[in-house]
Amino acid sequence: MKKSQIDNNVYLYPMPVVLVGTMIEGKANFMAVGWVRRVNFLPPMIAIVINIAHYTPKGIQENGSFSVNIPGRSMLEETDYCGLVSGKTTDKSELFELFFGKIPTAPMIEDCPLNIECRLVQTVELPSNYLFIGEIVGAYCEDRFLTDGKPDIKKMDPFVLSMPDNRYWSVGEHIGNAWSIGKKLKAK
Amino acid sequence: MKKSQIDNNVYLYPMPVVLVGTMIEGKANFMAVGWVRRVNFLPPMIAIVINIAHYTPKGIQENGSFSVNIPGRSMLEETDYCGLVSGKTTDKSELFELFFGKIPTAPMIEDCPLNIECRLVQTVELPSNYLFIGEIVGAYCEDRFLTDGKPDIKKMDPFVLSMPDNRYWSVGEHIGNAWSIGKKLKAK
Repeated sequence: MKKSQIDNNVYLYPMPVVLVGTMIEGKANFMAVGWVRRVNFLPPMIAIVINIAHYTPKGIQENGSFSVNIPGRSMLEETDYCGLVSGKTTDKSELFELFFGKIPTAPMIEDCPLNIECRLVQTVELPSNYLFIGEIVGAYCEDRFLTDGKPDIKKMDPFVLSMPDNRYWSVGEHIGNAWSIGKKLKAK
Repeated sequence: MKKSQIDNNVYLYPMPVVLVGTMIEGKANFMAVGWVRRVNFLPPMIAIVINIAHYTPKGIQENGSFSVNIPGRSMLEETDYCGLVSGKTTDKSELFELFFGKIPTAPMIEDCPLNIECRLVQTVELPSNYLFIGEIVGAYCEDRFLTDGKPDIKKMDPFVLSMPDNRYWSVGEHIGNAWSIGKKLKAK
């Protein structure tokens, strides 16, 4: 074996990047989050993972809600800014044009191609982080980002992050179809 | 607002793709998983989300362990195949050259650029899915995929998945640096 053991604090490659929206003390706040994933099929649920020291958990715990907004590449600077400055010290409520769906405490960003509002259903407390599980109660998208009524990754143009080198990457070319390209091996 | 409400069963864009390894009835089994994420900083933990009807939960529950293997683009067909056929009916134990680290029930794939072995620490039961939280107890990588001792995304060449269109994508070009490019807005 040519492999060697490396540090256990290893990341997954790559991570998506979303802006998590909350309402804290009457103001909208947004945080850049890379540890985010769907976690249940029906009803649809999303989990976001946030360090317990951050400001965003306060809003989620107080209101039992949050939004997940997927930025396009044109929003790279604004997204990174939301990861650089804390709502504890910086008012980010004027940074974006906002809208609301069914939940008045889940502010969403008009300029993000895809917006999802979630109602908190469970919190898992881990040593460094909260894992907040939310049920999706609304999803919003402009027609120009849809193909056959579904969000289209190339039209939305999201970006991804690698850590610990801290680099953003675009999504590259289409290299194959899932639940399909592996059928070649099935035939063997 | 030009946005319209779309179906709640919306995905995040894009998803990483990993092969989860387990040992079931004495045989190594691998499943393609896209709902996977780091969930705790210290100690490092990963969560994988698997439909309760799948075969893999049996191995995780019996042994309290699993591996997470990140495939490179050259393993696209094998990875997709592992998502097409269930270990219930198909023996996947001969598909890859395997190795083991500290846990004898967490088989890892030699050809995957990055391998992570996890000890199960918590299971969250959701309506359709299990969310398995594992502590990382070992991570393995060849020197040729490292830069300054850390896995390098461009050297590993992982791929991502979009759903429900079920397309695989490469990682594209470097478009900016995280915790950096947003500083332009901070100065305003």
